[in-house]
Amino acid sequence: MKRRSLNDVNCSVAQTLDVVGDPWTLLIVRDALFGVTRFDEFQQRLDIPRATLSTRLTTLVDHEVLERRPVADEARRHEYVLTEKGRALHSVVVAMLRWGDRWSNLPEPPVTLIDADRGAEIDPVFVDRVTGRPLSELRIERRFNDGP
Amino acid sequence: MKRRSLNDVNCSVAQTLDVVGDPWTLLIVRDALFGVTRFDEFQQRLDIPRATLSTRLTTLVDHEVLERRPVADEARRHEYVLTEKGRALHSVVVAMLRWGDRWSNLPEPPVTLIDADRGAEIDPVFVDRVTGRPLSELRIERRFNDGP
Repeated sequence: MKRRSLNDVNCSVAQTLDVVGDPWTLLIVRDALFGVTRFDEFQQRLDIPRATLSTRLTTLVDHEVLERRPVADEARRHEYVLTEKGRALHSVVVAMLRWGDRWSNLPEPPVTLIDADRGAEIDPVFVDRVTGRPLSELRIERRFNDGP
Repeated sequence: MKRRSLNDVNCSVAQTLDVVGDPWTLLIVRDALFGVTRFDEFQQRLDIPRATLSTRLTTLVDHEVLERRPVADEARRHEYVLTEKGRALHSVVVAMLRWGDRWSNLPEPPVTLIDADRGAEIDPVFVDRVTGRPLSELRIERRFNDGP
């Protein structure tokens, strides 16, 4: 049974899952965030069937997460580059990376994120921009906003 | 074609997607984070087929994201409560919420997160715990750690 679209659900989490809820899709975004642009490189890194990759890339272009651009001086070749909307997914990927680091059965984190300017490891934490307090320490409630 | 398990992939993002890569699964976790515990309440809120919900809940219990507990004084009834591992998924859900708020086609954010102690809106941002700088302002590189 094909999953119905979540696109009509009035929730921003559901909206996001409608674009990137497929596991391959987020792994493509992960690699794009770290500089992969070519079809063949995505295919080799992910070890993904070519038809599957092609479908997922098309979906991401349709959702304006990736932009498909011709490669200069290479007729018929294209590259896939993250848009601003696509780059903004870094927080989703980082949140997943950290959860997997902590809670999966991997013996140690396979990848460490480095602040290139300081040459030091990054320890990402979600905070409230106003108070600087970690979200994990807050008592969070939801307020439902009525539509217009 | 059934998706193969990503469980053997040496990447914490892939490991996380192996547990919560299904859209329904993250929507269940979202509702659990906001206090839903009963099968019927998940079912009504998500408007999900009962068999699908049952499968997803079992997967989440198997992965120790949810704990299935008998309800006191109610024979044969159970509730599903997030474990510490499950509660740690709040950062993934919040990251998706914010991305959807900003980039989906919803006219306005359907839900606002409130710091219950201050009564004020939360503006979640991912920062480096050491420097306090937002990740979006950093030049981030990956260091690959060799396994043992």
